[in-house]
Parts: sequence; C-alpha cells; structure tokens
Amino acid sequence: MRHELDYIFRPSSVAVIGASTQKGTIGRETLHNILTAEFNGKVFPVNPKAPVIHSIKSYSTVLDVPDAVDLAIVIVPKTAVKEVVQQCGEKGVKGLVVISAGFSETGHEGRLAEIEIVDICHKYGMRLIGPNCFGVVNTDPGVNLNATFGKTFPKIGNVGHITQSGAMGEAIMSQAKELGIGFSMIASIGNKADISVNDILLYMKDDPRTDVILLYVENFGNPRHFTQIAREISRVKPIVAVKSGRTKLGAKAASSHTGALADVDVGVDALFEQTGVMRVDTVEELFDVAVALSNQPVPKGNRVVVVTNAGGPGILATDALVNNGLDMPQFSSSTIKELKKFSAANASFANPMDMVAGARGLQFRLTLEAVEKDDRYDTIMPIFVPPITIDQMDVAVNIHAALEKTEKTVLSCFFGAGEGSKAMEYLKGHGIPVYIFPEAIAKTLGTISRYRQWLDKPVGKVRTYKVDAEKVQKIIDRNLKGQDGAIVGEQAIEILNAYGIPAAGYRFAATAKEAAEVAGEIGYPVVMKVNTPAILHKTELKAVIVDLRSDKEVRNAFQELQKRVGKLKRGEKFTVAMQKMLQGGVEVVIGMTTVPSFGPLMMFGLGGIYVEVMKDVAFRINPLTDENAKEMIRSLKSYPLLTGFRGAEPVDVALIEETLLRLSQLVRDFDVISEIDINPFICSPERNNCKAVDARFIITQLPAKHK
Amino acid sequence: MRHELDYIFRPSSVAVIGASTQKGTIGRETLHNILTAEFNGKVFPVNPKAPVIHSIKSYSTVLDVPDAVDLAIVIVPKTAVKEVVQQCGEKGVKGLVVISAGFSETGHEGRLAEIEIVDICHKYGMRLIGPNCFGVVNTDPGVNLNATFGKTFPKIGNVGHITQSGAMGEAIMSQAKELGIGFSMIASIGNKADISVNDILLYMKDDPRTDVILLYVENFGNPRHFTQIAREISRVKPIVAVKSGRTKLGAKAASSHTGALADVDVGVDALFEQTGVMRVDTVEELFDVAVALSNQPVPKGNRVVVVTNAGGPGILATDALVNNGLDMPQFSSSTIKELKKFSAANASFANPMDMVAGARGLQFRLTLEAVEKDDRYDTIMPIFVPPITIDQMDVAVNIHAALEKTEKTVLSCFFGAGEGSKAMEYLKGHGIPVYIFPEAIAKTLGTISRYRQWLDKPVGKVRTYKVDAEKVQKIIDRNLKGQDGAIVGEQAIEILNAYGIPAAGYRFAATAKEAAEVAGEIGYPVVMKVNTPAILHKTELKAVIVDLRSDKEVRNAFQELQKRVGKLKRGEKFTVAMQKMLQGGVEVVIGMTTVPSFGPLMMFGLGGIYVEVMKDVAFRINPLTDENAKEMIRSLKSYPLLTGFRGAEPVDVALIEETLLRLSQLVRDFDVISEIDINPFICSPERNNCKAVDARFIITQLPAKHK
Repeated sequence: MRHELDYIFRPSSVAVIGASTQKGTIGRETLHNILTAEFNGKVFPVNPKAPVIHSIKSYSTVLDVPDAVDLAIVIVPKTAVKEVVQQCGEKGVKGLVVISAGFSETGHEGRLAEIEIVDICHKYGMRLIGPNCFGVVNTDPGVNLNATFGKTFPKIGNVGHITQSGAMGEAIMSQAKELGIGFSMIASIGNKADISVNDILLYMKDDPRTDVILLYVENFGNPRHFTQIAREISRVKPIVAVKSGRTKLGAKAASSHTGALADVDVGVDALFEQTGVMRVDTVEELFDVAVALSNQPVPKGNRVVVVTNAGGPGILATDALVNNGLDMPQFSSSTIKELKKFSAANASFANPMDMVAGARGLQFRLTLEAVEKDDRYDTIMPIFVPPITIDQMDVAVNIHAALEKTEKTVLSCFFGAGEGSKAMEYLKGHGIPVYIFPEAIAKTLGTISRYRQWLDKPVGKVRTYKVDAEKVQKIIDRNLKGQDGAIVGEQAIEILNAYGIPAAGYRFAATAKEAAEVAGEIGYPVVMKVNTPAILHKTELKAVIVDLRSDKEVRNAFQELQKRVGKLKRGEKFTVAMQKMLQGGVEVVIGMTTVPSFGPLMMFGLGGIYVEVMKDVAFRINPLTDENAKEMIRSLKSYPLLTGFRGAEPVDVALIEETLLRLSQLVRDFDVISEIDINPFICSPERNNCKAVDARFIITQLPAKHK
Repeated sequence: MRHELDYIFRPSSVAVIGASTQKGTIGRETLHNILTAEFNGKVFPVNPKAPVIHSIKSYSTVLDVPDAVDLAIVIVPKTAVKEVVQQCGEKGVKGLVVISAGFSETGHEGRLAEIEIVDICHKYGMRLIGPNCFGVVNTDPGVNLNATFGKTFPKIGNVGHITQSGAMGEAIMSQAKELGIGFSMIASIGNKADISVNDILLYMKDDPRTDVILLYVENFGNPRHFTQIAREISRVKPIVAVKSGRTKLGAKAASSHTGALADVDVGVDALFEQTGVMRVDTVEELFDVAVALSNQPVPKGNRVVVVTNAGGPGILATDALVNNGLDMPQFSSSTIKELKKFSAANASFANPMDMVAGARGLQFRLTLEAVEKDDRYDTIMPIFVPPITIDQMDVAVNIHAALEKTEKTVLSCFFGAGEGSKAMEYLKGHGIPVYIFPEAIAKTLGTISRYRQWLDKPVGKVRTYKVDAEKVQKIIDRNLKGQDGAIVGEQAIEILNAYGIPAAGYRFAATAKEAAEVAGEIGYPVVMKVNTPAILHKTELKAVIVDLRSDKEVRNAFQELQKRVGKLKRGEKFTVAMQKMLQGGVEVVIGMTTVPSFGPLMMFGLGGIYVEVMKDVAFRINPLTDENAKEMIRSLKSYPLLTGFRGAEPVDVALIEETLLRLSQLVRDFDVISEIDINPFICSPERNNCKAVDARFIITQLPAKHK
C-alpha cells in the first residue's frame, strides 16, 4: 500500500492549479520548474483563462482533467482557494500543496478560512501541505519533482530538508547549492494547517535516500509528539535544527522559583537535549553541519588530528577544537617514526602537525597516510593555506588519494581559498567537505560530537513506583474543592510522603514557652520559621532562624521572629513552624513548572543562591527517564558539592535521582498540578537524613489543556 | 622630521635584494607586485646573476645601486641574509623588510642568526621588519607600495592590518578582497626581531588614512607595553584582534587558588578587556567587524531596528540581537502613524518590522525613511530575502537612497543572496556593508557595542595610599633572608596591616584549657583552626571548626582537631589558631598571581566554592585603576550576594574596592611578591567587621624578570 504522503512526494500526476503564462509569476515559475526538472509523470496546467500554457493543454478546472490526479499544486488567489480545494475533493485528488498565502499568518479571518479548507480536505480524505509555503521537491531520479517557484534547482543528494519559512526557501536552496549540499527531499510546510513537521519527519525516516534531516522551525505544533518522534528518529538518522523564535516562555509573574527560572529558552533546549536533535544557532552552522554529515561518517570519538602547511591556522584550529570539547592527542611513537622518514627536519611532529610552508601534494599525502594509520584519532583535519608557489589542485588530489579509503571522518580546510577554487570543487566532488575557516570545522565537530555522545548513552527507562495516588487526590480535593490554588505546609508534605518522597514534618508553636517545649521534644538543634502570617520567600524577610541549640536560644528566636513580622492583620495569630535541623547536608531545590505547549518541565538545582543568583539549574521535559535524572544532577556546575567537595562526605545522590523520578511520576499522574517547588530538599550522606523541608504545589484545574 | 618607519612604509626608493627572473618565485613576484602597483619611487632590483630583471637594470649588490636606498626588501636564501644586511648598513639603507625565512622560528641556531642580523641593524641605525614575513603594503596613492609576494592586490581603504602569520598573509588578503575590505597599510611582522606590533600600532595611530586597526597575533612580545599603547589608541581608533595560541598559562602546580584559576586564557582576556581592544574568536568575525567599522560609525547605543520583507530572518535576527546584548525597542507612536500611511494592512508595525513578502524597493525606502527619523534607534538593519518576483537592484538602490544621509549605523543583510550579487556590490560600493546571514550582524554589533561601552566608561585612576612599605620590606627580609619562600600566618597579617588592609589577628593555644582561656578573652563565638602542623587547604582536612559558642564547645573542638590531625612528626607540637567569628559576613577571596610575560594578575571572587567550583572569578592586569576594581567586583555572577541578597544587609563594597587598590599598590611596590592569597576576606555591612582572616604571600627573588 502506498503511504499517504507518497501522493505528494511521489505522485503519478500533478495538476498545477493557477498555472500562468506570465513570466516571473509564481504560477508560471512553478509549472516551468516541474517541466524543466523532467518530472516522471503527467502534468496538467489548470487555468480557465489560458487554453495552452508552456506548450501544454490547459484545463478550466481540475474537474476537467481527463486523468486521475494524485497531487494538486494550488497557486490561485486566496479568495479562490476554497472553491479549488472543493473541486480537488470532488475530483478525487489525494494530496494538495497550497502555495497561496493570506491565511492564518494574517490573523483571525485568515485562520477561519484555513480551517474551512482543512475541513474540506478531511471530508475528502486529502492531505494538505501549506498554505503559505514554497512547495516541495523530490530529487529521486524516478520522480524528479520540483514543485517550487524558486530559481535554484537543488543538487541531488541525501539531505532531507523541512522548512517552516516559505520566504526563506529560495534563499536556503541557493545558499546550499553554493556549498555543494545535495537534497533528497525538500518540504516547505508553511502554516502547517494539516501536515506537520512530525508527519514529514516520519516519512523521511523511512525514505532510503535520506541520510540526514535539516529542520528550520519557528514553533512546534505538538512538542510532546515531536519529542517522541525525534528521539526515535535520531537513533537512525541525524537531525539538525535551527529553532528560531525563542520567545519568553510565558510572562507569568515569578510566583515560584521554578517558574521564574524557566522563563528562558530552556524548554526548547531540554527538548533538543533529550531527543538527540542537534540544535545550531545560525543557518550558517546548519549548513556546516549538513555538509559534514551528508558526506562523512559520524566520528567514532572526540580525537582529532590536524595536518597543516602553516602554523597560524593550526593554532586557530587547536584553540577552536579544544574550546568545542574535542581532544588532540599526540602521535604514537610509530607514527612519529614513520613521519620522520620523509618530513622536513623542522616539521613539528606534534598534533597539530605543521609540515612547514614548502609542503606540496606529495608531502600532504605521505603525512596523511601516516596519521590515518594511527588509531589514536577519529577525525582527520587537513588544513591547506595556499601560497603562490604551490599548486592547489595537486594538494587536493593528494589529500583525496591519501584518505579516500579511510573509515575515519575527514573534514578539510582550504584557508581563505575563496568559494570558486577548482581544487575545493575537486574535494567536494569526491565527498571530502572543504571549509574556508578551521573554526567552522571545530564548531561542526563539537555539535556532531554531542550527538554521538547522545547516541552512546543508554536509552533510559521511565520508572513507576508503588505510590498512594488516591491519598494525593484526596488532599487536593479536600484543600481546593475543585478550585485553583496552592497547597503548602503540612498538606504539601503529605503529598510528598504519599509518593514515597522523604519529607520532614513540622511542629508548630504559638508561644515562646510552647516553642521551647517542642524543641525539647524533637531534639536540638532546631530550625524555626514564621508559619503565620504566610510569607513566600522566607529568607527575604529573615523569617527563618537556624541552628538553635538551647531552650534559651529558642525562646529568644521566637520573640525575635515575632518582632520582625510586626503587627498582624486582625484575626491572625503569630505562630512558628519548627523542625529538627539536619546537619552536614546540602540544600537542593527540586521543582516543576508547566510551559505552554511544552507541558511539564522538571527542574533541579542546588540551594537558593546557586539556583537564583548563579542560574545553575537543569531542566528536562517530563516524563523523566532514569538517565535523564542522572544527567540533570550531573550537568550542574555545582555538582561537585554533592560528591564530597574538599573532604566532605558525599551525599546520597541515588536518593535525589529517585526523588526526581518519583516526582516525575506524580506529575504524570496529576495533570492538575501545574507547579511544584520543593525548597529546600536536604541531601545528606545518610539516606535517613535526606528530606524535603518545605514544599508548595500549584493546582490548575484545566486538565484538558494539559492532556 | 620623518618618522623612522616612514622609510619602510613611505620610501622614496626600494632595493629588491634577491629579485628573480623566474615566475612563481618570491623574488620575482615581489618585484612584479611593486612594479604593477606603480610604486611612486625608484625601484632597484639586486641580483648578481641577472643584469636585467622585469625590463629593469639589476645590480650585483646593494652597494652598486647609484642612488640612495630608503628600503631594502630581502628575499635571499637564509645563509646570505647576514651579508646582505651588512651591505645595506654600509650603503646607508634606512629600513629592511626581510621576507627570507629560516630564523628564530626554526629553533636555537636560527635564533642566533637572527640576533646577529638585529645587531647589525642596531649598529647602522636601520629598522627591520621580519624576518619570515609576507611583506608590507601602503595603498596611499602618493606611495603605492605593495612589497608582498601574494597574488591579491588589496583594495584601497581605511583599514590598517598587522599580522604575525606570514603564511596567512595571502589567504587573509584574498578573503578580505572578496568581502570588499579596503586597506590603508598592511604589515606582516613575522618573527618581530626588531619592529614589534607595538611599534606599528603607534605608527598607524598617527596615520590619517587609517581608521580601524586589525590585529592577528599569536603572542605578545611585551604585553605590559602593549596594554599601555592599546589603551591609548583604542580611545582614538578601534582595534580588533584575533589572538590565537591560547596556551595554558604556566603548568605550575595548583599551590594556590589564584594561581590555579589563572591557568586559562584569563591573562589575554583581561588585557583586551582593560584596553578596549575588541577580541574576536575567528578570522571570519574579524572580517565581519572590520567591514562594519571601516564603513559605518560606531553606534551611539544598543538599540537596533530591523526592517525585513520576510518573517523568518526577522526572527533569526531578533534572537541573535537579544543574545548578543542588543535592545530592540518598539516604534514611537508617530513612526507607527507614518508607517500606516503606506504599509500593507497585514504588516507587523512592530520591531522587527515585517513588511511582508510583496515589499519592493519603494516599500523599503518609505519604511526605512520612517524608522530613520525615530530617535529610539541607533542602528538600522534592513534584511532582504530575494524572492524571484522582486528586483534585487531596485531594493539595493532604495535602501541606499533612504539611508545615505543618516547618522545612524546601517548594516544590511541580503539573506542567502550569494557573494556575486550585483545588488550587494552596489550597496558595498556605497558604504553600506552587506552580510549573508543576520546572525553575523548581531555578533558584530555585540562586539562593537562592548567597545562603545568601554569608550563610555570613565578612564579611571591608579590610587596611591599612605602605607608602610618599609615595614613590609623588613618582614620579607626577616622571614626569607633573600631566599624564595612563603610568608603565612601572623607575618602575612602584618604585611596586610602595613598597607592599611584590615586583618584579624590570631591567638594561639597549645592545650584545650589554654584554648578555652583565649576564647574567653576574645569573646564568643570563635573559630578554631589547626596551626601546627601547617596545612594548605584547611577545609579539605576539616582542619577548621567554626561558631564555637561555649567553653565546653571550645575544649571539645581542640580535642577533635587534635584527633583529626593524628600523629605528629617528631619535634612538632600541636597548636591551634583562634579568631573571633565574624558574623553576618560574606567570604571573598582576593589574590594575585604572576603570569609569565603578563606580569601580575589581580584576582577577586566570592568564597571558596564560588571561586573553585563555580569558577566565578574576575582577573585584571595590574596596575588596577579604581574603575578596574569596581568592574572586577561587579562583573561576578555572584555579585548580588554582596549587595543584599534576599533582604540581607549589603556589605561594604567600597572597602573591597579599596582593599583591591591597596593590594595593587603593594604589588606595584614589591616585585618580589609573585603570589598572594587572601582567603577568606570577610565582608560585612559594617566597615569595622570587614577583615582578612588568612593570607599567604609567595616571594620569588627575581626582581629583574618582573621589572
């Protein structure tokens, strides 16, 4: 059975509705491109005003076309789109690419018009790309479909490209051609009214001609779905993405730490981090990575050898490689022995290997052959600076001859040689990417290396523990009676306990005497904090006093806190909450915030200052796997504080992992929980002394939105 | 009087020693270039083997040249250089450019040969560029000197370029030409045997044709001198530098915190930071910044307006601008009113201003004219994505027409338009830089914006306090008797006191009873730490116990520390040092380390963990100005902890500044001090409670090296 997207990317017949005779119009250029690319099927121009277009018989409407039509390209004015789509439905067309603009991108009215069109598609079982798109391309020689209106014919290759920006389609294609990037398929998906990034990703995953997928996206329709799909595809084919449009995620007031901290691009970053998708910052880097991946294998490791005829670029390369996390081990002794046979006496015999300025093609070949045999390297980086006295083509031919059979990754640099050099074309034509600047190679290798590390990681499991979900439901119901609101204090502690998360209970006191009695019972030292009135950030108002060691200190502290709080509202009574002070521990913060369209983001960081001032905090999209939990903790700069900094005993990190996973389960089980702050959670060397000290849940009764 | 470098950059006559008849050799190409560039003076080829070269009479030696010779270009084999230089001296030549290689870059022997040559130059009062260089260029139409052997003739312009890498000279010139960067002068300085970066910087500072200076350097000969010169020149002309060769600064063991932390590129970063030199990471960025600065004014502020015909690049630009620290304020209401007169109804009327895809030249012109009048912006960034239906040249002409008289900075982007576009050439030819990707503009503006902020800063003063230097000298002499070594404990505290830096004294105890007595005298709470045996990182061995509040706690602590230390060496006696515990303070670390060739680097950071785990630490080259001290403190991520985090009282930051400046003076006064660690220094809200608690000085008796 044919895949439903085959009707769009591998059609037997195409109707071009809105084909035009006038040069420079989209209707004319699209038809022209389909014909020029020698599409392997039938083409039917449709235009009621012209009987012949581009030497082909034209039809008034798609209904008049005598044959079956798989795909219709729609280029009519926006007001005519609805009628045309209706006719396509009646005709039995299977797929639509609507290039016409003027729909949801223009506002509310356009949005309504778009919905009408999609409804017609659903009624007739048609799938639709667009509207407001640049078209589609399939370079498969058995298809030869270029249904775009651009001037550039993409080169044939193994890169699948999905782009959300129609206006950038042509620009990206022309730039790619200059760089020698070849495409298997291109899909400009426009407003994504029906077919989404996810649909096309799945289609490209199964396309045998596509080895690498490039994404240009401005927003995610369904990031949860994307997470699942991308995670799966990344295992098989690398995905590289420029995600633009980094919006401030929600302008919600900083009512909780976790919420305020997530107010950056963390959702998108976490999404890419967890799915293995390589995120790059610029379109230029997208191309740089694409050239490497579409021509060369993913390096097996981080170890790079640089072979150059000039010191300067060798140093630039070394700096950039090290800064991008690559390693540059020195040669094995047998390699040095081999190199000494033919190298200039003043060559460096070190990595980077500077063969000095006189080096010609032969020198490059011998040196590259020698280092190729050295199993200390995963990637070989020849750098050539063309002095006038040396023939560039001779060097290119020899670089290729030395490395054509290697299983190592090869990325070369012709420093400043200019785009037009024939020698560079020679290498590109033989599958060896050439860059102008060594720093671009270093950045590219850094990006690909992070992908390889992701591939090497265990897949990870989502854990399910035995918990008391019913009890949590009861606490929520009892406290909020179906309303939105917060759950704090003892109730919040109970929720944690129900999910097996250790939490210290509170004792309360309303007088200094009572406080002293409580302290005597729970044992010194104790912590005392203001309980009523409720205060959000307790340290800000100095509403907490720690390490009270005697009856006298407890009484004084009670009076001091009462003084600090000052006059109370009528009906309020001052009380304090008390806990045994947990000693020798490290304070961490564990939380969750809900980001529109991303769903719950889990958060982990150390103590208030590390999180709030140093911004040293990790986010992951829920559900967390055990590997995600491990990574979150270990990704922090402050992680060494948990593992025994300067002779301190290491804390029970496994318990923190488990706590994150139990919290993740709680978040999965209760859509109504929109924010969680466990702050602080005390981690100690002994499991029994690890405890949540304070917690806070925000409940938002909008389960439908989050499901 | 002529400047001595005028004989090199503005000579009346040039001898080309080693001129050759053979195409493709350096000797031939250099002579060819001088002639082709129509040098405005006399040229004398020198070659004993050829009577005529390139149609010009040639001489056997420079001594045979009938006229006076200002400049000799030396291209003979390395073994002949010495003799040739000697002859130049005898002839009365004023300047030499030695292109010949094989000197200090090849090792010890070459180094000796180089010294011989320099000695001859000094003897005859000749100045020398090189050896091992690419040559020099002066595009002044009154000079027209291109004494290089490259194929590329640089475009005339206002950029002065100093490069250390000879091999990269040609590559850089060819790349620059493609990008439309024009040069006033180029100096390839090679091994810098005589004339240094600093010499040429000063020369270019006074050159009226040079507006921007580009530096490619691998190391600094005399960074202290460079600091002074660059600081001065940056005020007048912007300097942009790629500094490569980021070496690990010294492999010294981590014997002190400050030393270990400086083991990165901090010296160079501090140097650029303090001198206003724009440091870029790659050669590509060097060009990007050069294009902007050589054609456009430094923006007056950070505010950018983006005008585009496509949403995608507008979003990319916005992301990149914000990430590079630029602002994108919205339009004033009068601008919106103006824009509405002619814009498409579905245009955005927001910054970035998306005029939508149909926008042509006229639309660009009207829109740019409107935003140009809006005083909310300092920089205007037109972005054009060329769809097939729109004439690129029409857009270019209109962008120029709209902005030719603006005082704002204009940097434009023709997204993906390819290097060859005529429209782009038009804009470049009219002084409006054009970039292929908007992200490159954002990065460029970010770099320039940091430079402008540096320009806007007060210049700062080096302070001198009344101190007791004599006392410090006595302490050093008494402790070390002219030897290298460390000064710690009470003696170190005395040094601080002599320079007016508040420091807490110690009290010592050898028994638990004695400790309790001392505690009673200095008042509770107290801190106790191991005094003998000497232990470097006290927290690591848990050799400190804080917050002891009673006689009993003090006795227990003494015994506990004694237990922790364990068995002592024969002749050692266990003692503790005690201080009153300073409460409510923030611990900071103040230090200095000496970096080879950079001299003393001052250091500041918060507490042990912030410095050591979070690497949140600031370095500056000594001497510090008061502005440097201010900046160092404020540049820390953890700075908010000093200014009253969460309701805490702010500490006395002015005292920390003064402490840094007093320490800077101590470092100026005593070359023998090679490292200082004040750790911790307690900062409190009250000046009387701000105190150094522990300090350590390393003395290295090598004053000559550091002078």
